Amino acid sequence: MAQDKANSSSKKSAKHTISTLKTSYSNQLLPGVKSITDFLASMPIIGVIVAEFIGTFIITISFLEMQGNPLFFGFALIGATLIVGGVSGAHLNPAITIGAFATRKISAINAFFFIASQILGAIAAWWIINEFAKGTAADPSAENLVFHAANIADGKEWVLFWAELLGSTILALGVATSIRLRKNKIVAAFATGTAAMIALYITLSITTVLLTEQNTGFSFLNPVIAIAANGISWSNWPIALYIVAPIVGSLIGFVLQDYLNSQSEESDNNCNC
Amino acid sequence: MAQDKANSSSKKSAKHTISTLKTSYSNQLLPGVKSITDFLASMPIIGVIVAEFIGTFIITISFLEMQGNPLFFGFALIGATLIVGGVSGAHLNPAITIGAFATRKISAINAFFFIASQILGAIAAWWIINEFAKGTAADPSAENLVFHAANIADGKEWVLFWAELLGSTILALGVATSIRLRKNKIVAAFATGTAAMIALYITLSITTVLLTEQNTGFSFLNPVIAIAANGISWSNWPIALYIVAPIVGSLIGFVLQDYLNSQSEESDNNCNC
Amino acid sequence: MAQDKANSSSKKSAKHTISTLKTSYSNQLLPGVKSITDFLASMPIIGVIVAEFIGTFIITISFLEMQGNPLFFGFALIGATLIVGGVSGAHLNPAITIGAFATRKISAINAFFFIASQILGAIAAWWIINEFAKGTAADPSAENLVFHAANIADGKEWVLFWAELLGSTILALGVATSIRLRKNKIVAAFATGTAAMIALYITLSITTVLLTEQNTGFSFLNPVIAIAANGISWSNWPIALYIVAPIVGSLIGFVLQDYLNSQSEESDNNCNC
Amino acid sequence: MAQDKANSSSKKSAKHTISTLKTSYSNQLLPGVKSITDFLASMPIIGVIVAEFIGTFIITISFLEMQGNPLFFGFALIGATLIVGGVSGAHLNPAITIGAFATRKISAINAFFFIASQILGAIAAWWIINEFAKGTAADPSAENLVFHAANIADGKEWVLFWAELLGSTILALGVATSIRLRKNKIVAAFATGTAAMIALYITLSITTVLLTEQNTGFSFLNPVIAIAANGISWSNWPIALYIVAPIVGSLIGFVLQDYLNSQSEESDNNCNC
Repeated sequence: MAQDKANSSSKKSAKHTISTLKTSYSNQLLPGVKSITDFLASMPIIGVIVAEFIGTFIITISFLEMQGNPLFFGFALIGATLIVGGVSGAHLNPAITIGAFATRKISAINAFFFIASQILGAIAAWWIINEFAKGTAADPSAENLVFHAANIADGKEWVLFWAELLGSTILALGVATSIRLRKNKIVAAFATGTAAMIALYITLSITTVLLTEQNTGFSFLNPVIAIAANGISWSNWPIALYIVAPIVGSLIGFVLQDYLNSQSEESDNNCNC
Repeated sequence: MAQDKANSSSKKSAKHTISTLKTSYSNQLLPGVKSITDFLASMPIIGVIVAEFIGTFIITISFLEMQGNPLFFGFALIGATLIVGGVSGAHLNPAITIGAFATRKISAINAFFFIASQILGAIAAWWIINEFAKGTAADPSAENLVFHAANIADGKEWVLFWAELLGSTILALGVATSIRLRKNKIVAAFATGTAAMIALYITLSITTVLLTEQNTGFSFLNPVIAIAANGISWSNWPIALYIVAPIVGSLIGFVLQDYLNSQSEESDNNCNC
Repeated sequence: MAQDKANSSSKKSAKHTISTLKTSYSNQLLPGVKSITDFLASMPIIGVIVAEFIGTFIITISFLEMQGNPLFFGFALIGATLIVGGVSGAHLNPAITIGAFATRKISAINAFFFIASQILGAIAAWWIINEFAKGTAADPSAENLVFHAANIADGKEWVLFWAELLGSTILALGVATSIRLRKNKIVAAFATGTAAMIALYITLSITTVLLTEQNTGFSFLNPVIAIAANGISWSNWPIALYIVAPIVGSLIGFVLQDYLNSQSEESDNNCNC
Repeated sequence: MAQDKANSSSKKSAKHTISTLKTSYSNQLLPGVKSITDFLASMPIIGVIVAEFIGTFIITISFLEMQGNPLFFGFALIGATLIVGGVSGAHLNPAITIGAFATRKISAINAFFFIASQILGAIAAWWIINEFAKGTAADPSAENLVFHAANIADGKEWVLFWAELLGSTILALGVATSIRLRKNKIVAAFATGTAAMIALYITLSITTVLLTEQNTGFSFLNPVIAIAANGISWSNWPIALYIVAPIVGSLIGFVLQDYLNSQSEESDNNCNC
């Protein structure tokens, strides 16, 4: 009994000191950066723009370096969703944002800022990866040092289109689930990450047999990653494959998820456990 | 102090704007699809049918493209469970549904609809994969472009039967745990996904040595995936291996899980953390 | 507004039907097995015995088939912990049980039953894997068809001992954390699974260079898996490596975790999130 | 009805016995180690020191044995964060601690003890791995038996610097999220683990092309792991790459996370689900 008491008292003093240590915890930044963040904090849309920029930057640089490896890209999405999901929901993909807008989950003005910052994030990722590729390459003047979109195989355009559409639908089902359940951060992160893993694995399996060059891919499931991979040009098929297919897939995925959610036993309470 | 106040006020205005942005969030769909979903929402069994169809479609297409890779198939099940688990519990497997029915977790009529939509989902996955295989193959008239069931090795039928039974029992233990704990979505998803990983790894390790053709497998742990892999025919062993063994394994798994649950310290509260 | 109402009413009817469907949900088993489970339910220690038997069976069969692959074995432990952790805490390892007993987490009588069922579970796994190996092998009379303990390299015994001790300490740190936080099932599962992954990776990296035969290993981190791998014989080094080292490592791990827990900010509340 | 009652009564008796068994559960240690832990418990900073020492020891030994493999190192960080995160928040990295100090998350005196124990943990890991390497090597007098820092490629120093800076920024974004959300243990663990996976994958992809020796790497993202890998010497570039770059990256990551958190919808409540 006395021993118990001693134990509890040593515990209490431990607690006390810990809470003393904690008085030094605060959310204040260094004075130097404080005025900047105060200014930014007064315009909340900036928060969403920064979040989507950072998240898209991270996943684009991951996708290109990982050459679309589904397992690693899935974990990259899990990481990016945990880091920025609390602010913007972690769309990180214009097709997803358009699906969210079409099913009335965000406003037109927000959708515009989401997509703009996603494009900027992907372009920043592209620029940095290219700089690194030039800096490390034996022959920096060589073209296509980085993983990039393959030339679309003649006569196989529709196969690629349907593959991209199928993958984007599965991805959007997962991301729509993630956005709906965003308060349960680990569920949200895994819904996005595992859906991307499934979708990428399937589309890569289908399309890889058509590749004729190394270091290339047909499947991005994300218009801005396709931009960063030099996949977009002003001709019909690139736009159909890398912009139209993801958007149509995303619309199908969001509508299906809205329906599934309306049927879910806990649709009114997305944070019940 | 004044600085603190300024900080808090900028924070409040940030909050305000965010909640303003959110007024545009709603669960309404586009008018075009609204009447259809309203009609469907009036018949809740349709929700379960759609959920099982989508989930089974996703895992069947994943299994065939992944050639039964346990790691990726495990993550595919985690993704599918997160996407449709809230509606139907994500059986995605007639053997599981029969185990759930036998241990009185769903009614006969529901079991019928679950199994029907699982069969349709797997057939849709089979059809789409075959179309893709024909579209990308060098010789589209070749047979067996897709991962499919191997010819059953003569004299080894019982080995395959016991392997499938063992794997299905482990899988059913996990899925029964998942269905019981479905309100804790991440636990439910990992219980199903890791059990499938274990079960597939074990059955593949046991049976792979008997394979004589490439691109084939003996183990599916799921009658409808076996159908999609052309594994089922009207003869005794295919039915024993790919229908009877999974069902018997599932019954054992569900009974064991019911017993384990009755002994669990928190059996009355499956959502305690 | 009217549209909203219609929507809500269709939702309500959906809810109604779902709850009607649910009346058929119950935890009753088929009459045939009911009397057996009722009998078993009246003796709760049986529940723990069954849980440890099933869990140890699953991880032993996984370890042998996976040849100690750290990634897959980690996921196998996550699965087994999710399935049986609610009943017994998922020790699945006599060294862990002895560590738990020494730090007063279970009684002597319970420790005895835990260890007995772990031994039986591992022996059952060994027997089944051997039957399968004989059933599928080209030459069933060949010895060592299954992954088994390597012959201990002369003069390297102490290296192996320290490696096993280091690995077991890391594993026990994770499992002790898992047992402490068992109410948060996903945390408990990942604490065990990732600790096993780390511990196995490290011990395998250290010891693999000493292997001279294929299909063998030096590291099990679990006395009953070592038994199933034919690693235990009545001589000094096998007992030191595969029984003494894991137990000493487990004791160190449990004592360290007890200390860490006493310092944790939320030591009185292991289920706070 | 009577059957139901019998069932419930057998359940109750089961419960009773289980709670009886539990009376033997307590957090008391063996008398032998009790006085030591009581002494330690009276000085709470020791708890933090022990936690950071154990955690850094585990991840350093993991990093060196895993040769920086991003997937396994990510899981090692998940495990280490689950084991020690409740005590210290699992910085495990002086650059992270400096970032946390600069954004006022810990006091100067704490930062000093964090960093000191991280250095000691890494040195202990280095010493143990070297002993094992000597014990298992065919030629124990050979140098560089263990994974170690590569010679910095001439003319590529800035490329390596920017890569390390980029990786450290991504890592710090994840760890800062983890520390903020530490009460949700599984989210905290995955935020750290997946961020490390992404950061390592990217920096390894960028820098690997510059390696000229086997068994070496350029990227550690952690000054004390760089020390353990013999990467630090008293010359400009090693200090810039392995100390300055991680610290600058960490500062950027923490400031960004502070900003993101100020914009997060639930910034006042880091444990809302």
